[in-house]
Amino acid sequence: MTVHDPAHAFVPYPHAPVPHASTGPLSGLSFAAKDLFDVAGYPTGGGNPVVLALSGIKTRTAPTVQKLLDAGARFVGKTVTDELAFSMNGNNAHFGAPVNGAAPDRITGGSSSGSASAVSSGLCDFALGTDTGGSVRAPANHCGLYGLRPTHGRVSLHGALDLAPSLDTCGWFARDVQTFARVADVLLGDDAKPLPPQLRMLWPTDVWTLLNPLVESALQGAALQVTDLFGPSQPVDAVLESFDAMYWNFRYVQGREAWMTDGPLIERYAPPLGPGVAERFDWSRAVTDEQVVSARAFRERYRAHLAALLGQNGVLVMPTMPDIAPLRNAPESSLEDYRNRAIQMLCIAGLAGFPQLSIPLAQRDGAPLGLSLLGSAGSDRSLITLAERIAAAH
Amino acid sequence: MTVHDPAHAFVPYPHAPVPHASTGPLSGLSFAAKDLFDVAGYPTGGGNPVVLALSGIKTRTAPTVQKLLDAGARFVGKTVTDELAFSMNGNNAHFGAPVNGAAPDRITGGSSSGSASAVSSGLCDFALGTDTGGSVRAPANHCGLYGLRPTHGRVSLHGALDLAPSLDTCGWFARDVQTFARVADVLLGDDAKPLPPQLRMLWPTDVWTLLNPLVESALQGAALQVTDLFGPSQPVDAVLESFDAMYWNFRYVQGREAWMTDGPLIERYAPPLGPGVAERFDWSRAVTDEQVVSARAFRERYRAHLAALLGQNGVLVMPTMPDIAPLRNAPESSLEDYRNRAIQMLCIAGLAGFPQLSIPLAQRDGAPLGLSLLGSAGSDRSLITLAERIAAAH
Repeated sequence: MTVHDPAHAFVPYPHAPVPHASTGPLSGLSFAAKDLFDVAGYPTGGGNPVVLALSGIKTRTAPTVQKLLDAGARFVGKTVTDELAFSMNGNNAHFGAPVNGAAPDRITGGSSSGSASAVSSGLCDFALGTDTGGSVRAPANHCGLYGLRPTHGRVSLHGALDLAPSLDTCGWFARDVQTFARVADVLLGDDAKPLPPQLRMLWPTDVWTLLNPLVESALQGAALQVTDLFGPSQPVDAVLESFDAMYWNFRYVQGREAWMTDGPLIERYAPPLGPGVAERFDWSRAVTDEQVVSARAFRERYRAHLAALLGQNGVLVMPTMPDIAPLRNAPESSLEDYRNRAIQMLCIAGLAGFPQLSIPLAQRDGAPLGLSLLGSAGSDRSLITLAERIAAAH
Repeated sequence: MTVHDPAHAFVPYPHAPVPHASTGPLSGLSFAAKDLFDVAGYPTGGGNPVVLALSGIKTRTAPTVQKLLDAGARFVGKTVTDELAFSMNGNNAHFGAPVNGAAPDRITGGSSSGSASAVSSGLCDFALGTDTGGSVRAPANHCGLYGLRPTHGRVSLHGALDLAPSLDTCGWFARDVQTFARVADVLLGDDAKPLPPQLRMLWPTDVWTLLNPLVESALQGAALQVTDLFGPSQPVDAVLESFDAMYWNFRYVQGREAWMTDGPLIERYAPPLGPGVAERFDWSRAVTDEQVVSARAFRERYRAHLAALLGQNGVLVMPTMPDIAPLRNAPESSLEDYRNRAIQMLCIAGLAGFPQLSIPLAQRDGAPLGLSLLGSAGSDRSLITLAERIAAAH
């Protein structure tokens, strides 16, 4: 570890030299990577002690990390991930709960907990995370950061531990949009089909209905900023399918793939898994072929539905999460409703494979709250350009 | 890992070549080492994920391990230890509960859980453990193995993680006394003052009183074997001081030293510690200077008392533990009385620093039960010779 780490954001591996280009578009920036990404000279622990034991020291660096190094960014360490990336709590039973630099009494969210912690605590300029079901977007919301879930497949996850490959994406966090955009230029390049100047800002009324009025009013100023800039938003309905359809179909796909990924490890080594994670894998093991087939068919229909709704120039303006981060000591029972509403919101981009950018535009009770822009497949860089314009107008 | 491991005895580190002499007194024997001992090419995890992360790959091998390699023994892997060696349960919250090869429905005991598991499961011929408060003797009793807590300081713990240095000892396990004695010849050599032929077999009535009658009768055959061979035992009383004196003074010394050893790690990294371990360290942090000073003075008096009682030729014949191993699913509340009685028995050698050999001579309910021989400082090899004679007479 090359940084002082009062936030417990980093896995404290011994320092290994990781060369980076001396000049380049990311020169002067420091970054961290979630401990799912291979970095030569370090193990890859995936938030699980047995995975860490099995890892040994990696001799290759994941291409996405290498791109950042080649662009001049300086690697400072590997960050704590929720166990096997299969949680959104930011509390790893083996490696701890990194501190939310924007709201220390609240969880960071996960599974990219350490990356969000490191950036929000000012320990590095940006950090890589992964997002399968919300693991970048939730911590970005909670820690007051810019955070992107890219179009599925756009940023390489080669050399990173999988969770559910048809849902896994590689995102990142930064405190300011300038830094965020510099990283985007390296990891995304330009959009093949950028969003056109004439946008349709879409207001998904059924998603907003998931908020309680206090949260909705806290986000309204941010929403007005966006509509002021890009023209009035038009309400759209039926972005969400039923709770059952969104929630369970997402979970069936995720569960089956998570079990394909980690089941062999779990069956061979019987690693003790932390609370919640153990139960999720038990549940995942029991997902049936019928459930998966029907869930994948639903996903195809949903993707087509959302693609039609967005067209070439539609952008959903919506909350990232149902509220600010829960308190660190919140009882598990109080989180169920929060989590159910969160999954519905997060499933939209998750099921469609479309990009969603969370922008730290609001606050409530002194804690950050993100507003999201969600665009059609391939609109990632364009969404960030919108965020740059919002920040410039601020 | 170089062995098939259905018992989950080993930490699954990638195989690294560990050269050993092609001939020597241990030629043909395979061995494992508790994951407190440094072995070049492997990390040292100490049963804690953050310690494992901090470890990196060791470049030196602990001298005691090296001695075994130089004697021709083949290293097959590092075994699971209870977390930071501060438990006797054999259930590590991060690395699991190795299987007791002699009684699979029962715990192995700990903290040398993986070593006892590997040997009792036939995965290697012998294995190194450490014993601070019973971490070799308890698993030896539970897994039907020969296990020695040596005279304090006799077998080097250099290059091994400490728990409480003034109590820590390096012991080992084997299934048969021939193997056990071969290892003894390498690690102990001869006793400077071997026990004389004319022994006084001492029957500590107050220790035996800690057993319930069922256990006592299960051990009686073994005890008779011993008295048949070495002459009648004479009862001695007052081997134990009061429960409070034995139990608390041992715990004060152990707790203070454990906190000296691991407190800095715990305060810096706040690693999530498993159930029981977290509470023990919390308790240890609070041990006062007055408690430690008085506990050390008690220990000196107790050592002198026991030395006087044993003289040059006294050997205590006593149970190793209050009973066979508890069931794996025994409720925590049912173990308290068992544990309190165990600590009293185990404290005798622990406080005195004297050697104690547990011999798998008995059974109850189909599970093994050990009989112990406890001698004066430096009588380690002589105790093993007694065990060889017992086995030969069998």
